[in-house]
Amino acid sequence: MADYTAPVRDIRFTLDTISDIDTVVALDGFEHVDVDMVDGVLDESARFFAEVFAPTNEVGDSEGATLIDGSVTTPDEFKGAWSKLREAGWISVTGAPDFGGHGFPKTIGIAISEMMTSANLAFSLCPMLTGSAITLLMRHGSDALKDQYLEHLITGEWTGTMVLTEPEAGSDVGAVRTKATPADDGSYRISGTKIYITWGDHDLADNIVHLVLARTPGAPAGTKGISLFLVPKHVLDDDGRPSDRNAVETVSLEHKLGIHASPTCVLSFNDATGYLIGEENRGMSYMFTMMNQARLEVGLEGLAVAERAYQHAAAYAKVRKQGRAVGGSEPAAIIEHPDVRRMLITMKAYTEAMRCLIYDAVAAEDRHLNGADETEREAARDRLALLTPITKAWCTDRGVDMASLGVQVFGGMGYVEETGAAQFYRDARITPIYEGTNGIQGLDLVMRKLPMGEGAVITGYLDEIGALDADLAAAGPALIEVREGLTGALSTVRKATEWLNGQDDVLARMAGATAYQDMLGTLAGGYYLARQALAALPQMESDPWMAAKVATATFYAKNLLPTVHGLADAVTAGADLLFAVDDAQIGAGA
Amino acid sequence: MADYTAPVRDIRFTLDTISDIDTVVALDGFEHVDVDMVDGVLDESARFFAEVFAPTNEVGDSEGATLIDGSVTTPDEFKGAWSKLREAGWISVTGAPDFGGHGFPKTIGIAISEMMTSANLAFSLCPMLTGSAITLLMRHGSDALKDQYLEHLITGEWTGTMVLTEPEAGSDVGAVRTKATPADDGSYRISGTKIYITWGDHDLADNIVHLVLARTPGAPAGTKGISLFLVPKHVLDDDGRPSDRNAVETVSLEHKLGIHASPTCVLSFNDATGYLIGEENRGMSYMFTMMNQARLEVGLEGLAVAERAYQHAAAYAKVRKQGRAVGGSEPAAIIEHPDVRRMLITMKAYTEAMRCLIYDAVAAEDRHLNGADETEREAARDRLALLTPITKAWCTDRGVDMASLGVQVFGGMGYVEETGAAQFYRDARITPIYEGTNGIQGLDLVMRKLPMGEGAVITGYLDEIGALDADLAAAGPALIEVREGLTGALSTVRKATEWLNGQDDVLARMAGATAYQDMLGTLAGGYYLARQALAALPQMESDPWMAAKVATATFYAKNLLPTVHGLADAVTAGADLLFAVDDAQIGAGA
Repeated sequence: MADYTAPVRDIRFTLDTISDIDTVVALDGFEHVDVDMVDGVLDESARFFAEVFAPTNEVGDSEGATLIDGSVTTPDEFKGAWSKLREAGWISVTGAPDFGGHGFPKTIGIAISEMMTSANLAFSLCPMLTGSAITLLMRHGSDALKDQYLEHLITGEWTGTMVLTEPEAGSDVGAVRTKATPADDGSYRISGTKIYITWGDHDLADNIVHLVLARTPGAPAGTKGISLFLVPKHVLDDDGRPSDRNAVETVSLEHKLGIHASPTCVLSFNDATGYLIGEENRGMSYMFTMMNQARLEVGLEGLAVAERAYQHAAAYAKVRKQGRAVGGSEPAAIIEHPDVRRMLITMKAYTEAMRCLIYDAVAAEDRHLNGADETEREAARDRLALLTPITKAWCTDRGVDMASLGVQVFGGMGYVEETGAAQFYRDARITPIYEGTNGIQGLDLVMRKLPMGEGAVITGYLDEIGALDADLAAAGPALIEVREGLTGALSTVRKATEWLNGQDDVLARMAGATAYQDMLGTLAGGYYLARQALAALPQMESDPWMAAKVATATFYAKNLLPTVHGLADAVTAGADLLFAVDDAQIGAGA
Repeated sequence: MADYTAPVRDIRFTLDTISDIDTVVALDGFEHVDVDMVDGVLDESARFFAEVFAPTNEVGDSEGATLIDGSVTTPDEFKGAWSKLREAGWISVTGAPDFGGHGFPKTIGIAISEMMTSANLAFSLCPMLTGSAITLLMRHGSDALKDQYLEHLITGEWTGTMVLTEPEAGSDVGAVRTKATPADDGSYRISGTKIYITWGDHDLADNIVHLVLARTPGAPAGTKGISLFLVPKHVLDDDGRPSDRNAVETVSLEHKLGIHASPTCVLSFNDATGYLIGEENRGMSYMFTMMNQARLEVGLEGLAVAERAYQHAAAYAKVRKQGRAVGGSEPAAIIEHPDVRRMLITMKAYTEAMRCLIYDAVAAEDRHLNGADETEREAARDRLALLTPITKAWCTDRGVDMASLGVQVFGGMGYVEETGAAQFYRDARITPIYEGTNGIQGLDLVMRKLPMGEGAVITGYLDEIGALDADLAAAGPALIEVREGLTGALSTVRKATEWLNGQDDVLARMAGATAYQDMLGTLAGGYYLARQALAALPQMESDPWMAAKVATATFYAKNLLPTVHGLADAVTAGADLLFAVDDAQIGAGA
C-alpha cells in the first residue's frame, strides 16, 4: 500500500519560480484571488487528497468498476470520497463564478489537479473530463444549455464525458459515422456506437452529460462535417431536474491493463435526444479549443504517477535493508547503494522537471485567456501551443519510465501486485496513448508548431533558454555544470530545429518527430531546473531543501540532459530507411 | 490473441554469421551432430512451438496457476502441451546422452529455447529452471544423486527448481538463514522459509527436485557458509520411484503483475530430507557455475518477448487502417505512417541485435566447455564472462521497452487486455529484476568484468569491433553510414571504458555502471548488425530479406547506436551528486 504526501513545497516553489504566480493572480478576472490565499489552498487540498482520496487508489485497482444490468458500479469507497470532494469544493476551483465556481486561475487549479491525480489517477479522470465538458459548454454552448447544465457540472452534482471515438475512428476522428437527425422541436436524434468513453457511466452522480461528435444529414466528409451535441443520460424535466432515461446504453466495459476504477464504456446511442452545441459542422474546431487543456491534463497524469511512484520507491528504499554500503559492515538500507540512489534521484529530477514544464504551460493558458492586452494574449497563446504537445508526450513517456523505475527499486517485491508499484506501471501506460497518441503529438509539434510564425515561436523559446546563460555565468562555479550541460544541449536542439524547419521532405520531418519531441522536452526540463537552481542558490548553505534543488539540477544537467545528443541523429535520419524495408520483411514470417 | 511464427530464417542466419555454428558443431563432444541437422531441428521445433505452445500463452495469463489445498494447479491446456513437449524431446536437446539427452551444443539449444520462450514465457520457466538444476547436478552432484535424478530431469519426467531467496536474503544471497542439520543416515534435515520459488509446485510432473541453499550448524557467516542441497518433493523408494511426500509445503502463491502461469511459491521446509550436493560451504560457488547460463537465459527472455511483441504489433499495423498516408487519398494501414513504421523498425532492429548478442555469448559457452585446447577455452570463458551481464541486462531492458512500444503501436487497443499486447508488457517487466537485478549486472560488469586481465578482455572485445572497420570500408558506399555510426560509438565507449578502468573511486564506478552497461550493449548490437549487413550485402539486390538486413543495420547505426553518445556523461558523472542530496530530501515530505 502506497501512501501519498502532496509535494506542497515543490509545488509552491514551482508556482513562484516558473509560473510567476504573482503575475497570474494579477490578471484580469482574478481580482478576488490574491497570492496569500495560495498557501492556504495548497495546504488544505494537500491534506484532503492525502487523507480522503489517496486511500481509494488500491481498492479502485483491485475491485475496479463493474457493469451490472446495464449500469456501472464503482467501489463503495468512491461514493464517500466523491461527496466529500464536492463538499470541499475542490472540483469547482477554476469554474466560472456565475455558475457556482470559485473562478481561480488554472495555474492554481493544476496544482490541485496534480494532487488529485497522484492520489487516484483513475478516479481523477471523472472530474478531469467533466472539466473538458465545462470548457466546451462555457465557450460554445447556448445560454439556455449553460443555464440548464453548467452549474450542475461545476459543482460536481453531475459529471461530463467526451464522446469522440468509434471503432474505425480513433486517431482519425474525421472518420466519425454517428448520425444526428434533426427533430421537429429543434433537438436531434443521435444514433451510433462509441468506444473508449471514460466514465461513460457510473453511480456517483444523478446525471451524466455526454458531449458527442456526430454527423448531420448531408454534412461534408471528414472533419469538416462533424457537429457537437450535448446528450444527457437523463433528459431534464420542465424544472431542469433529471427525469426520463435517454436512449444511451452502456453495452460493455473494457478490461484494461490499468486505471481499473475508471469505467471505459462502449456506449450505444439509439435515437437518443441531443442538443446541438454551437453551429453545425463546427464540432471539430470546438474540440480543438478544449484539446490543449485536456492534453496538458494528460501530461499532468505523467507527472502525477511519477511523483507517487517516486515517493513510494523512496519510502521503500529507506527501510529495505540488503547488502552493505561501500566501506560499511552492517546491513544497509538500499538507498545507500549508488545504483538505487541513482534511480531515485533520476525520478526526483524528472518529476520536478515535468512539474515545471506543465506549470509553465498552464500559466501561459491563463495569460492567453486573461492577459491584459492582445500582445500578451497572443504571445501566451503561441507559447501554450508550442508547449502543449511536449507537455503531453514528454511527461507521459517519462511517467511510464519513472513508474517502471519504481518497480525496479522494489526488485522482486515490485513485481508482486500487493506492493502497489506495479499499479503505477500499469496505470501510467495509458497516458502516452489517449488524448492523441504521443506519435500524433510529435507530428503536431513538428508539422504545425515548429513552423508557427515562420519558426519565430520555437526560436523565441530557444532564445529564452539561451538568455539564461548570462544568469548562470553570473552565478559562478556552483552552477558551472548546469551551465555547460544546458549550453551543449541547446546547441544540439537548435541544429535539429533548423534542420526540421528547413526540410522540404514531409516524410523525413515526420520520421524525426518523436526523437525531436524527446529532445525538446529534455532540454526544457533542464532549462526549468536551471532556473530553479538559480532561485535556490542563495539559500543552499542554510537550507538542505534548497541544496537538494541545486544538486538535482546539476544531476539532471550531467546525467539526463546529455541524452539529447544521442537523439540528434535520429531527428535527421530521414524516412528513406524506414521505407527501404518492404512491408513483407516486417514482422512474422519475414 | 497473438499468433507466433518462429523467425527461423533470422535464427539460422544468426547461427551462421554470429555463432559460427560450423565451428561449434565441430567441437569435441558433438561428433554425433552435424550442421545439416540444424535446419531440420529448427523447422520442426518452429512448427511445434507455434502450434502446440504458443496457443497456451493467453489462457496461461488469464487463468494463471492456482493453489488449492496446498497443491498448485496449472491450466488444463498446459498438461497436454507439456506431455507433447516431453514426447517431442525438445527439452532434452542439450542434455547429456548418458542420461537420456541428445547432447547437442547449447548454441542449438538456445534457438529452441528462444522459440519456447516466445511461445509462452511463463511456461518456459519450468524447463528453464529444470535446466539449471540439471547443470548443477551434472557438475557437482555425486554419482549416486546423478543416477537417481538426472535422467528423470533431462527427459522432463520430473522438474527442478532453484531455491535461493528468503525474505531478508534477496540480492544479498549471503544472508540466507535456512538450516540444514546432518542426520544419522548421511542426509540432512532442512528447515526454513523460501520465497519467489518459480514453479515451486505444480501438477505437470510426478516429482519436483528442489535445489536449496542452506546453512549447516557452525557454518561461517555470509556466502562462505552456504551449502547446496537436493530436496525432492517426494523422497524416492528403493526402486528410485517417488514415494512419500517430503516435508516441503507450498504456503502461498504470489499475485504478480505478469507471468501468471508461472507459480511463484512461498515454500516452507520443515525438517525436510535433503542431500548435500558437492561439499559443505561451497554452495555459492556452485551456484555461480550455473549463473552464467541462467543469466543468458533471462537475457533470452528479453529477446523472446520482444520478438513476439514485434510480430504482434506488425501484424496489427498491416491491417489496422487509420488516416491517410502522405500523398494518399484512401484510408491507409498504419504501417504506412512514418512514426508507426519507425516503431516497428526499431523493434525489428533491437530484436535482431539482441539475438546476435545472445547467440554469440552462448557460442562462447560451448567453446568454453568443449574447446579443443586451453587457450580457446579460456578465451571463450572470458568472452562469456564479459558478455553475460550485458546480455542479461541490455536484452531485458530492451525487452521491456519493445513490449511497451508494442502497446503503443496498438494505440487504445493496446491498453485492452484481450488484445494481448498488454500481456507482453506485464510479462517482460520481471526480466530486469530476477536472476540478479540489472543494477547488479551493471556492478558485475564494471567492478568485476572490466578489470579482467587488467582490462585486456574488454579491450580485446572493443578491438574486435574496431577491426570490423576494414571490412566496412572495403564494402564501399552501401555501408558507409553503418561504418560511421560504429566508429563514432566505439570511440565514445572506449573513452568511457578507460575512464572506468582508471578510476579509483569505487562509488563513482558504481554510479556510472548502469549507463555504461547500456552503452556497451548498444554498441555490441550495432557491431553484430554490421557483421550481418556485411554478410547480407552480396545478396541485397536479389533478395529483399537481405536488403532488409542491410537497411536494418543502417537504421540502427543512424537512429539507435548514437544514443551511446547521450550516455557518456552519465558514466563519468561520479557519485558525489547522488550523495549531495540528503536522504531527508528524497521522497515524500521533502
